[in-house]
Amino acid sequence: MEDSEKINSVKAALIVGRQPVVEAMESGRAIDKILLQANVSGEIIGKIRHMARQLNIPVQTVPSEKLNSMTRSLHQGCIAQAAVVEYADLSQVIGEVTARGTIPLFVMLDGITDVRNIGGISRTAVCCGAQAIIVPDKGVGALNEEALKASAGALEKIRICRVGSLLKTIDDLHLKGIRVVVSGMKEAVKLQSIDFSMPTCIVLGSEGKGVQPYISKAADERFSIPMTGEFDSFNVSVATGIILYEAMMQRLR
Amino acid sequence: MEDSEKINSVKAALIVGRQPVVEAMESGRAIDKILLQANVSGEIIGKIRHMARQLNIPVQTVPSEKLNSMTRSLHQGCIAQAAVVEYADLSQVIGEVTARGTIPLFVMLDGITDVRNIGGISRTAVCCGAQAIIVPDKGVGALNEEALKASAGALEKIRICRVGSLLKTIDDLHLKGIRVVVSGMKEAVKLQSIDFSMPTCIVLGSEGKGVQPYISKAADERFSIPMTGEFDSFNVSVATGIILYEAMMQRLR
Repeated sequence: MEDSEKINSVKAALIVGRQPVVEAMESGRAIDKILLQANVSGEIIGKIRHMARQLNIPVQTVPSEKLNSMTRSLHQGCIAQAAVVEYADLSQVIGEVTARGTIPLFVMLDGITDVRNIGGISRTAVCCGAQAIIVPDKGVGALNEEALKASAGALEKIRICRVGSLLKTIDDLHLKGIRVVVSGMKEAVKLQSIDFSMPTCIVLGSEGKGVQPYISKAADERFSIPMTGEFDSFNVSVATGIILYEAMMQRLR
Repeated sequence: MEDSEKINSVKAALIVGRQPVVEAMESGRAIDKILLQANVSGEIIGKIRHMARQLNIPVQTVPSEKLNSMTRSLHQGCIAQAAVVEYADLSQVIGEVTARGTIPLFVMLDGITDVRNIGGISRTAVCCGAQAIIVPDKGVGALNEEALKASAGALEKIRICRVGSLLKTIDDLHLKGIRVVVSGMKEAVKLQSIDFSMPTCIVLGSEGKGVQPYISKAADERFSIPMTGEFDSFNVSVATGIILYEAMMQRLR
């Protein structure tokens, strides 16, 4: 994210005009939502609606004044808001991190799909020195202004990798010598027994469901956060904070 | 909170009728909001409005059907929703905790006034074995259903003490042999150097402002959470999680 100005600029995140929007979707660029003028129609508009449906991109119908207020360019009744964060390629990120002489500390999110939650987790991850967050490309919306706000700007300071399959990614991480550890609820192994001094990727699940069993099985170790009180569990962002704090402290020692 | 049924019951949290609502306010019971029927008036209604204004209790005007749907009792156009959580007296709580042979671990909130935030912090506090949360009686709303939801029920499992003055309370804590430590942003002393094995009260400030200087000055020690990444800071609920985790782990060792 060399050019953080660009990533953060709302103007730069607008894709204006029918053909540019089609091309953006075709190129796989992450789009937050598409705004269509109320009365537009035609073949290409049909195509935009169809592609948006397939890619799970929300389409909003707005009056022309709305679009006019967003740009001075010829919008042809169609503007897309691109994700404010550019996604990075995982193997490239591993290369970068290793080249810098730092030990990889990654966070993988399984079932945590709310972009605000991802923003909040990014903030904690940056504070604790993690270098990347890995999210699946299905079910997770494009990281938008709201996510950036929830991250207090941290999303600009950490790599976000969208991957097709979390399971295949665990394989890839293993091949690169990165251990994969899973946070669970009722694991006998406690957080503080995990060795975070090695290259590590921490997998976090959603509050209700936890990490999916087949993902958990593919990991090297499973742990839970110790608790004194007799209570259900920590909320997911607090749990993330505790785990990353433990990892950071082990590396600082 | 021996009678958790009662605390949690919405029905039980309704105060029905004009005189009962006046009496509840006079007795200092924490009230979330007051519902008044649209067309009611008279001396006692005027008194209710006046007291509510003074006590910062929101008054909502509703049609009679709304009130009828809430109770079968004679409501006289006036129902108050009491806080779902009963407040506890701090010195009584200290007595209880010491009688149980446990070491006090309290959390004091300075400027954290959002009841959902307080709910969330309660959840973490219960998980880590803290016994009480101390909040000022000004600026903090009554702990309502929303706070209870944010706490995932934890508010039933921890004592909440509302106090008139945080500064005087620090004095009281000192007299009972409880150390007061303050979490700050740029303190040289790091979290892990604080000794949490002794009776301790942790003071947390709001994200923007932090703990007020005169409170911080009255405390025994000030610390900050170490950070590897070059970034602003942790969010308040994450910071609470990390601090209470450190305290709990020190006590488990």
